[in-house]
Amino acid sequence: MTKEIIYNYTLHLADNALILAQRNSEWCGHGPILEQDIAITNISLDLIGQARSLYQYAAEGCEGATEDTLAYLRDVRAYKNCLLVEQPNGDWAQTILRQFFFSTYQYFLYQRLQQSADATLAAIAEKSLKEVTYHVRWSSEWVIRLGDGTGESHNRMLNALDELWAFTGELFTPAGYEMEAVKLGIGVDVNEIKGEWEQRVNEIFAEATLPSPTTEGVWMQAGGKTGVHTEHMGFILAEMQSMQRAYPGCEW
Amino acid sequence: MTKEIIYNYTLHLADNALILAQRNSEWCGHGPILEQDIAITNISLDLIGQARSLYQYAAEGCEGATEDTLAYLRDVRAYKNCLLVEQPNGDWAQTILRQFFFSTYQYFLYQRLQQSADATLAAIAEKSLKEVTYHVRWSSEWVIRLGDGTGESHNRMLNALDELWAFTGELFTPAGYEMEAVKLGIGVDVNEIKGEWEQRVNEIFAEATLPSPTTEGVWMQAGGKTGVHTEHMGFILAEMQSMQRAYPGCEW
Repeated sequence: MTKEIIYNYTLHLADNALILAQRNSEWCGHGPILEQDIAITNISLDLIGQARSLYQYAAEGCEGATEDTLAYLRDVRAYKNCLLVEQPNGDWAQTILRQFFFSTYQYFLYQRLQQSADATLAAIAEKSLKEVTYHVRWSSEWVIRLGDGTGESHNRMLNALDELWAFTGELFTPAGYEMEAVKLGIGVDVNEIKGEWEQRVNEIFAEATLPSPTTEGVWMQAGGKTGVHTEHMGFILAEMQSMQRAYPGCEW
Repeated sequence: MTKEIIYNYTLHLADNALILAQRNSEWCGHGPILEQDIAITNISLDLIGQARSLYQYAAEGCEGATEDTLAYLRDVRAYKNCLLVEQPNGDWAQTILRQFFFSTYQYFLYQRLQQSADATLAAIAEKSLKEVTYHVRWSSEWVIRLGDGTGESHNRMLNALDELWAFTGELFTPAGYEMEAVKLGIGVDVNEIKGEWEQRVNEIFAEATLPSPTTEGVWMQAGGKTGVHTEHMGFILAEMQSMQRAYPGCEW
């Protein structure tokens, strides 16, 4: 039972990292300027590194699984990532805001996960936190630059907020395995980090001259954490898994 | 040798139909108005029907092949469709112009293919020609409506022309297997239909108040017919083949 909870909880963390990495990697060669093309691609590589560590650990708890089977041979309903990370890149503003929302969440999450009773998860969190700290700084700077930039860039940020805000609620709505993991002292109580996340978002938004988003009266989407995904997820997997599916067991 | 030529030539015709069908099907549920959403999806179904007949015939010439293995289990380099049909949908104008260019080509091609020394290809051409005649009429009407519409729609057609024109040259540049098929009396000499195609395009463009496109000094892309595709092709196959790759041998 404990084993299953750790497995599900670890997969959830891994899937978040992998799917956002896959989305960001779509920018490779298409970024607005070369330096930022490299930055967003490096963030993808950081996230893939985190996902690998987590999948390797999850695979220990599942007979016959490897990091590759977990990443490439599951179907949509088995993925436990939140809906936010699977949303389309849209324009640069939308990609930036998605990264800012997620990295800020991941920052407060990994800070606490360092105290996990599970030594492996604690170690992965500690190692990853340095990278995530940079992701938060980088995406925050872009939110400010675009929000407090031209009329065009400001409007694009408002549009990105419209597109993405409804997917932020799920971050702080724990799935069953998250609640179980909290009880075991292994996982982080996402309710506890909601306040800090909102405060950070409001601070950066104020500097960016963007309106403080409100959760009141807003319908928040959910389902990804338990495998009920948006229409985009199947297309992401079709592309991401195509090599492994066409050439099963292939190695580079 | 003859068998191989018929096989390659038939696959080329089939791949053209299948890949354009796949592209058009991306509009399903996203068309500008319901009637046209249904029209473009029906054109997809017509093309899939043609592709099926052609794949079934090609499979007869290849040990172990079926229409499904030919459609779903080949890799990019084995596809022989022209580059035009794999180009992205873009906006409605681009989708319309791609259809108009291709259907007009297919119309003159199938007209002649009815006289093929290969009775099966002749029969498929005859049966398909009714559908293609409608595709030409439908897409021609849209070219005129958009070209001779508002400033916005006119500009979108000009933009579509910029995007697609360089891919029209390949239609009339025969690959080796096409030339061999002509020698055998099986295939159509695409050089022979170029003049008719250009005349029809110019007539419709004149009515649409669009400038006559010229081939002079224009670099024409080629390669698709011999398996050298644009960057888009791998993504199309990843999506199109995902079900068969993830669940090999699956049946509905």
